Amino acid sequence: MPRLLIRDLAQVASPAGRAAPLRGSALADLDWIDDAYILCDGARIEAVGRMRELGPLDDDIEELHARGLSAVPGLVDCHTHPAFGGDRVDEFSLRAAGASYEELHAAGGGILSTVEATRAAGEVGLARAVSRHRDWMLRAGTTTFEGKSGYGLDRKTELASLEAIAAAGGIPTWLGAHAVPPEHATADAYLDFALADVLPEVATVAEAADVFLERGAFDVDQARRYLQACAAAGLALRLHGDQFTESGAIPLAIELGARSVDHLEATGSEGIAALAASDVVGVLLPASALFLGRPMPPARALVDAGASIAIATDFNPGSAFCESLPLVCSLAATQLKLSPAEALAACTVNAAHVLGRAGTLGRIAPGYRADVVLLDALDWRYLAYHLGGNVVARVVKDGVSD
Amino acid sequence: MPRLLIRDLAQVASPAGRAAPLRGSALADLDWIDDAYILCDGARIEAVGRMRELGPLDDDIEELHARGLSAVPGLVDCHTHPAFGGDRVDEFSLRAAGASYEELHAAGGGILSTVEATRAAGEVGLARAVSRHRDWMLRAGTTTFEGKSGYGLDRKTELASLEAIAAAGGIPTWLGAHAVPPEHATADAYLDFALADVLPEVATVAEAADVFLERGAFDVDQARRYLQACAAAGLALRLHGDQFTESGAIPLAIELGARSVDHLEATGSEGIAALAASDVVGVLLPASALFLGRPMPPARALVDAGASIAIATDFNPGSAFCESLPLVCSLAATQLKLSPAEALAACTVNAAHVLGRAGTLGRIAPGYRADVVLLDALDWRYLAYHLGGNVVARVVKDGVSD
Repeated sequence: MPRLLIRDLAQVASPAGRAAPLRGSALADLDWIDDAYILCDGARIEAVGRMRELGPLDDDIEELHARGLSAVPGLVDCHTHPAFGGDRVDEFSLRAAGASYEELHAAGGGILSTVEATRAAGEVGLARAVSRHRDWMLRAGTTTFEGKSGYGLDRKTELASLEAIAAAGGIPTWLGAHAVPPEHATADAYLDFALADVLPEVATVAEAADVFLERGAFDVDQARRYLQACAAAGLALRLHGDQFTESGAIPLAIELGARSVDHLEATGSEGIAALAASDVVGVLLPASALFLGRPMPPARALVDAGASIAIATDFNPGSAFCESLPLVCSLAATQLKLSPAEALAACTVNAAHVLGRAGTLGRIAPGYRADVVLLDALDWRYLAYHLGGNVVARVVKDGVSD
Repeated sequence: MPRLLIRDLAQVASPAGRAAPLRGSALADLDWIDDAYILCDGARIEAVGRMRELGPLDDDIEELHARGLSAVPGLVDCHTHPAFGGDRVDEFSLRAAGASYEELHAAGGGILSTVEATRAAGEVGLARAVSRHRDWMLRAGTTTFEGKSGYGLDRKTELASLEAIAAAGGIPTWLGAHAVPPEHATADAYLDFALADVLPEVATVAEAADVFLERGAFDVDQARRYLQACAAAGLALRLHGDQFTESGAIPLAIELGARSVDHLEATGSEGIAALAASDVVGVLLPASALFLGRPMPPARALVDAGASIAIATDFNPGSAFCESLPLVCSLAATQLKLSPAEALAACTVNAAHVLGRAGTLGRIAPGYRADVVLLDALDWRYLAYHLGGNVVARVVKDGVSD
C-alpha cells in the first residue's frame, strides 16, 4: 500500500489525546496547524506538520493537493440504528401535523412498526439497508460508526442485524432491550427469552449491549437484569436514558460501570452532578431532540460540571432520520452551546472512547488510523458553522481517498 | 435544444397553482403522481403524466432514467444575502460560548464587520463569492434565488453586489436600508445619501427594495420614507420585520402593499391576524432562528389563521450560514409544524409569487420552466424527512440535467 501525502492544507485541527475521555474544560483542548501536511503510511498516520518543515520524500509517494481545504479527524458516530426495513415518513408527516412521539408510539406506530418492516426485510434486505446507510454516513464524513440492532427482537433478525452492521464495517451493539415485541406478553417474559435464546449467539458478534430505559419500555430492575447478563457474556454496556423522563438510567449506568448513558434530554441537576462525578460518558443526540421538536439535553451544564460527553446522530427512521455529524456539530454550537472545538472532540476522540477505540481513532496524530475529513473551507470551524451545507469535500479512510 | 424525458420516476409532486399565493388550508393542496414521467421541451415543461400513458416519442429525445427517484419542482429561495466578503466564523464561535446576537452587533461585530469585508472584496471578489454561493444553492436544489445587497452601503459596492447577483442568475433586491454605515452620523443622514445618490442607479438593476425594520436599525418612519422612494423608482417592496421585536413592520407592509414581510419570530396574535387579513406574504426563515438559537416564527398559527407564507434560507454569514432549502423543509416540519406539502408549497410556488414569477416557476406543470429536483427517495416527502441528508440526487435546470 503506497504512502499518501495530503499537502497544502489550510488547517489541520485535532483534539488532544488522553488516556481517559476528555471532560470539562479539557474538551476544548485542540491542536491546530496552519499550512500543513498529513503523511499517511498505509492505513496509519505517519506524521503531521507544517508544509515548510516537510523534508524530502520518496518518489513513489501519492500526493493529494488540498489547497483551500481544512482537515479534521474522520468523524466517529458512536450511536446509530442503521439496521431497519421500511421508513417512518408517514409518521413523520403526522407528527408535523401535531401528534406527539409518545402518542404515535402508543398508537402502534413507533418502534414496533419498524420491527415489522425489519423482520420482513430478510438478511439480504438488511445487509443492503445497512450498507446504504453506511455510504450516506461516509459521504458526511463518518469513517467509523457504531450500529445497534433492536428492530428485530427475535433471534434470527437480531443476529442478521448485527452481522449486517459488522459486514458493513460498523461496530455492532446488541440493543436487545429496545421494545417488547408483540409475541411476548410482558417485558419480563421477553427478557427471559432474549437472555436465554438470543444472547449466547449475539455475544459472539456484538461488542456491547444497550437498553431503552424509559417509561413504556424497560424499567431499572429489568435494565439491570439485562445488562448484568450481557456483562457476564463479555459485552460492554450502554444505556438509552432520560430521553423523556428521568427513570434512573444515570445511577444504574454508574452502578454497572457502563461506557455511556445516551440521550439525557430530561436530565436535571442531580443527574448532571452524578454523571460529572463518574467515569460514564454522556452521549448527547441533538438531531433527535430537533427531529422530535423536544428540549435539548443540558450539554453546557454537563461540561461546566466537569462531565465527559460525546455527540452522535442517533440515526434511525423514527426519531432522527439524520446521518450527518456535521449537522450535529452545527446543532451542538447553536443549540447545545458547545464551542466548535468541544463539538469536534465530542464526535471524534470521545466517541472513540465510548467505542473502546481510543488511541487509534479520533485524532490526527502519528500512529492513529489514517481517517481524515477534508472540509471545503479555509477554517476547520466551518464544520459547525456551515449549517446544512456540503462542507465535506473529500474523505480519506484507512489512508485511501474517495 | 433537444427534448428531455425524465422517465420512471417513483413520484412527481407539485403544489397547486392559483392566481394568488396559496394561503391557509390551500397551502397543503398538492398534485402527485406515482410511476411518472416529465417531458421537457427545451427550457419548458411540455407534459407530466403516468408512465403507462406515455405515447410514442421521436427518436432524438434525450432520456434520463430516474428509477428510484422522486421529483419536486426546482426550489425557489426568495430570501438570501449572497453578496459578501469574509465570514463570521469567529462571531459564530463566540456566540456558541454564550454571547447574544444583539450583544455581538452592539460590540461592532455583526453586520458592520461584514460591510468592511465586503467593501474590501472588490467587484471581482464579490462576483466570485456570489457565484460560489449560487453553486452551493444549486447543489442543494435551489434553481432560482433572490439575492439582496446590503453589505456595501455605499454606491459602488451596492451596485457591484446587485450586478454580481444578476450575473450569477439571481433576482436582485436592493437592501439599501440594512444598517447605518460608519461614515454617516445618523440613519436619516444615511437615507438622504442612499436615496439621492444610490437609488437612481440601483433601480436599473434591482427588482425590489428591502429594509431592516428593527430596534437599532431603521424605525417605521425611516422605513416608510425609504420604501416609498423605492416604489416611486419602480421597485417592488419587501421588509425584514418582527425578528427581535414587533416594531410595526406588518402594518407598514400592508399600508404600502409590499410583496412580503420576512422573519416574524417576534410576531404576536395581532400581527398574525393582520397578516392573515392581507395580501402580504409572510416569509419565514427557520434556519436563521435555529442558527441564532432564537424562538421559531408562529408558522402554524399564521397558516391556521389563513395567511399566505413562504419559507426561505436567509443565507448570510452572520445569522444563517445555510443555503439548504431541504434543511429548511426539515425545520419547517419539525419546528414550524408545517406538513411536508405545506413546506414544499412555501419554497416553490409561494416563493415564486414573492418574486413576481408565479405562473412560470415553482410547479411541475405544462408551460412552467423545466426546473426539477430529483430526490434520492421513493417518496418525495424525504425532502423534509431526511434531515441534513444528501437527499438531492440530481438537479434539472432550464431543461438541462447536471
